[in-house]
Amino acid sequence: MPASSIVTIAGGVGAAKFLRGLAAARADAARGDVAVVNVADDFSLHGLRICPDLDTVSYTLAGLVNPQTGWGRADETWTTRNELERLGGQTWFGLGDKDLALHLYRTQRTADGAGLAQITREITASLDITMNIVPATEAPVETKVSVVGEGEISFQEYFVGRRHDVAVDAVRFSGAADARPAPGVLEAIGDATCVVVAPSNPIVSIGPVLAIPGIREALTERRDVVVAISPIVGGKALKGPADRMLTELGHESTASGVAELYAEFASALVVDTVDASQASDIERLGLECIVTDTIMSDVDVAAALATTTIETISNRGGA
Amino acid sequence: MPASSIVTIAGGVGAAKFLRGLAAARADAARGDVAVVNVADDFSLHGLRICPDLDTVSYTLAGLVNPQTGWGRADETWTTRNELERLGGQTWFGLGDKDLALHLYRTQRTADGAGLAQITREITASLDITMNIVPATEAPVETKVSVVGEGEISFQEYFVGRRHDVAVDAVRFSGAADARPAPGVLEAIGDATCVVVAPSNPIVSIGPVLAIPGIREALTERRDVVVAISPIVGGKALKGPADRMLTELGHESTASGVAELYAEFASALVVDTVDASQASDIERLGLECIVTDTIMSDVDVAAALATTTIETISNRGGA
Repeated sequence: MPASSIVTIAGGVGAAKFLRGLAAARADAARGDVAVVNVADDFSLHGLRICPDLDTVSYTLAGLVNPQTGWGRADETWTTRNELERLGGQTWFGLGDKDLALHLYRTQRTADGAGLAQITREITASLDITMNIVPATEAPVETKVSVVGEGEISFQEYFVGRRHDVAVDAVRFSGAADARPAPGVLEAIGDATCVVVAPSNPIVSIGPVLAIPGIREALTERRDVVVAISPIVGGKALKGPADRMLTELGHESTASGVAELYAEFASALVVDTVDASQASDIERLGLECIVTDTIMSDVDVAAALATTTIETISNRGGA
Repeated sequence: MPASSIVTIAGGVGAAKFLRGLAAARADAARGDVAVVNVADDFSLHGLRICPDLDTVSYTLAGLVNPQTGWGRADETWTTRNELERLGGQTWFGLGDKDLALHLYRTQRTADGAGLAQITREITASLDITMNIVPATEAPVETKVSVVGEGEISFQEYFVGRRHDVAVDAVRFSGAADARPAPGVLEAIGDATCVVVAPSNPIVSIGPVLAIPGIREALTERRDVVVAISPIVGGKALKGPADRMLTELGHESTASGVAELYAEFASALVVDTVDASQASDIERLGLECIVTDTIMSDVDVAAALATTTIETISNRGGA
């Protein structure tokens, strides 16, 4: 029997904080762990290939992330951006000088013919990250957001350009139907002692990973070891538009609303203490409900959350 | 009759210094002037479109150039490059933080569908450059350098990667035969009161401009107003490999060797005072020989050189 291995289905900032906690809690054991990261927010700007969720996860695990924002680099400088402004260039998505290096590297390696999984391995090795960071797919998948009264826009246009301050009536993942999971993703899920669905936006962070044919099915098959963490606390998203997006798309913006979305493939949901009263609703949907502190204000809280989450499975006697 | 208009056929650093002198000497009159700039050194790195000669000319005319090197930006910083090194990325061609902005801008506008001439107009307008900077062509033309005992390498690999410290037995301009002059180039040459061939490398800076079908012919037709400035002074190139390249390719590395290369389309050659003794050789080749100080140690010397150069034609009673 192989050593225990935790697989986390991950979006950006919330997932990154969880993964940092997991790495802290597991120490050397995390070497075999895998984060399967959303790539449907990826986009091209100035010809550069930008993968916001992969970058946020990598910067966070490397201890390089900007602690104020939860994304981008700490101690960042903006020389290039300021010059770009003088030239009348696009600056709506600000790329810091340090951050730019990562996009240049990825773009050059893509031009060299390397795949995104290989490039991500190279980057995480350079950054001394021991966990395995894997893109959900190497195929182009793009989240398209349909804005009420306007029509479809790209995810970054919605998220950064409009600061997600518009009403949404549909979301789709262009290219997902033809995508295949990146090498190793299905095997990692199959071999995992526990699969965690990170506290990320269920619609636009976890949704596009589930939309890649084979991944949702693999999770469903391992339902008994799949634990999700609710990104909704007291009815609100801690960050980003998950709450209003859930409501606008006809779901409940509550922990039990998340349980409903995940019930098919998750056997447990970790919810915040403020949502303890929803435990019976969640259990009625067929999920074990674990109540704990989910607001990852520092790495110790995140590590405790990670421990509680994976113990949900190991306490069942599985590992 | 239109106001006088000077067209300069330009490479990088030497041409840029001349153009800055021309702009200083002509002041407002330079608004109608045109620099037709070599693009055969252009290349792609990290997915970015880099045009070294256009950039050197633009930075120099905008007063932004690094005065030590003659290319790149003054007061440059290297944050991105240093991070790229940490990632194990390509740093053989160093892109400074300020310089990067220009490449990001050009790459984005190329992706938007804009042509290089239009993009160059946008950049020079942002930098408050009044002279018209025009790429010789918008088509892809690439200088390929054949290294003795090794075969063909790209221009940047030769120039930067090998620091032009290898013997060359041939040079060709891939794509030139199918290229067309950029919009306005032939008209500018046709309408010019004086066409200057800048003191740039005759083989790899002026050569690829001449290789674009129509340009050499247009110059030949206007031979009576075409004046070249020798980039060879006392048998040596002031910068770069022009001297050894001329010798290796079977030409003479002297001012009169340059006269021989240009005799078909230039009616005068400006040479440095140290080469005064070559005047009779140059005149025997059918070119008027003007002797003056051609070492542009500051903008005043460059302005005086520009004035002397264009007066070669106006003194004939042409303008």
